Amino acid sequence: MQTISDVKCFGGRQGVHSHASKLCGGEMTFGLYLPPQAESGKVPLLWFLSGLTCTHENAMVKAGAQAVASEAGVAVAFPDTSPRGDDAPDDERVNLGMGAGFYVDATQAPWAERYQMRSYLLTELSELLFERFPLNPERQGITGHSMGGHGALTLAMTNPDRFRSLSAFAPIAHPPKGAWASEALTAYLGADQAAWAQYDSASLMREKGWGKDILVDQGADDNSWDNLAPEHLRDAMAARGLGDSWRLQPGYEHSYFFVSTFMPEHVRWHAARLNA
Amino acid sequence: MQTISDVKCFGGRQGVHSHASKLCGGEMTFGLYLPPQAESGKVPLLWFLSGLTCTHENAMVKAGAQAVASEAGVAVAFPDTSPRGDDAPDDERVNLGMGAGFYVDATQAPWAERYQMRSYLLTELSELLFERFPLNPERQGITGHSMGGHGALTLAMTNPDRFRSLSAFAPIAHPPKGAWASEALTAYLGADQAAWAQYDSASLMREKGWGKDILVDQGADDNSWDNLAPEHLRDAMAARGLGDSWRLQPGYEHSYFFVSTFMPEHVRWHAARLNA
Repeated sequence: MQTISDVKCFGGRQGVHSHASKLCGGEMTFGLYLPPQAESGKVPLLWFLSGLTCTHENAMVKAGAQAVASEAGVAVAFPDTSPRGDDAPDDERVNLGMGAGFYVDATQAPWAERYQMRSYLLTELSELLFERFPLNPERQGITGHSMGGHGALTLAMTNPDRFRSLSAFAPIAHPPKGAWASEALTAYLGADQAAWAQYDSASLMREKGWGKDILVDQGADDNSWDNLAPEHLRDAMAARGLGDSWRLQPGYEHSYFFVSTFMPEHVRWHAARLNA
Repeated sequence: MQTISDVKCFGGRQGVHSHASKLCGGEMTFGLYLPPQAESGKVPLLWFLSGLTCTHENAMVKAGAQAVASEAGVAVAFPDTSPRGDDAPDDERVNLGMGAGFYVDATQAPWAERYQMRSYLLTELSELLFERFPLNPERQGITGHSMGGHGALTLAMTNPDRFRSLSAFAPIAHPPKGAWASEALTAYLGADQAAWAQYDSASLMREKGWGKDILVDQGADDNSWDNLAPEHLRDAMAARGLGDSWRLQPGYEHSYFFVSTFMPEHVRWHAARLNA
């Protein structure tokens, strides 16, 4: 692991690090915010998964998570959204290839060889983080925005023993509906939608549920609505008695101005559960 | 004026607008955050002036000012840092030309025709803002980072009746010392440093002072220290009994991770004075 930068932020440290990833076939970069409490012991870890076109950097500089993470004593990991490098398969579309890993383990050529973001996060990057930093693996939460909201919901619902807390900002909610996800999952996993099951948060919520409380914010004026298909998650949550936890936020759209507005509440919400 | 975007953020509106500037010889873009209180009356205005290489966008997305501005009922303006356009004079150096207007009215060729950022802010952009938005011109504060801290300090100290509150983050403090500012002011104003007087915050503080309280934060690990020459402002403030208002922040460097850490306190500090 190489440390690219490490600077003081809200009394803690904002680091950017890179490491050679076997699963992703090359160098991967991530951000990690350590609160001041990490100087004296292991702290909980909140994963923030980012959306289409993002690297590790966007949320790290724009989402405003560090202010509350510092108060609450929670670390925040900002992984990249795909394999990187001139030799990684790519596509001209914003919703496929670099910047658009969709947090899946691809099974189809040419993607399968390196687009293993689900396993990368759950195994390789996790092992590195818990080995190298004062983080408590028993206290993990996960959230994300848009494609990253999809990643957070699907990783958590398929690993309920691992994640104590779960939230999402305007997640891509039901890949069979919406061009972004349906095109991407067709390329990564094939056209047979049976293979998409563990990557469909609305269907996971409907069929197996999450078993804990959850927090989802969705802007009512989100111009990506048709790509997100959020009503499918809303309805699945309502069917499980979680209707009040899916919050339609009047007037908000899809950008980090929306994410940053609700970030303090999300970080506090996670911290309350991770510190409990 | 054209509105490029206008989205909800912390209950208020984050706008990006452009307008034709006579003084800058072309189209200029600025950000303006209006807190929710602006829906029911005029609100105070805090100017945030940005540093080298920045546009209107950097602080708007990275500094985290909107969260507290929303609570405090203060608008925040994010002007650009120079004239723009393919036909504007420019230089390969980061500290001269586009992105590096230094908030001066240039007198030397080829800069004088369009690099009039001081007058642009004080007259043209101000008139537009107070005409088109619910802002109270009697309640203006000003702050900024690095080159923008220099801009805030020098604009305020040469216009003490106009600005009620003043702060700065790691300001360029004494242009005769430090290559960034001395090269730029030589190009914009000529080599005779007598012409630099109104653009030298340490000298202004020493010779005329500010007459009100002030807040300056400076990172102790700032790798731009030699370009800022902050000790000159520190000493001039101490000589006026404002030594405690120049705060050396241990471990902090020069980036927005430093700015965002102290932004909540700065915005609250301004709001207390602007709302008084």
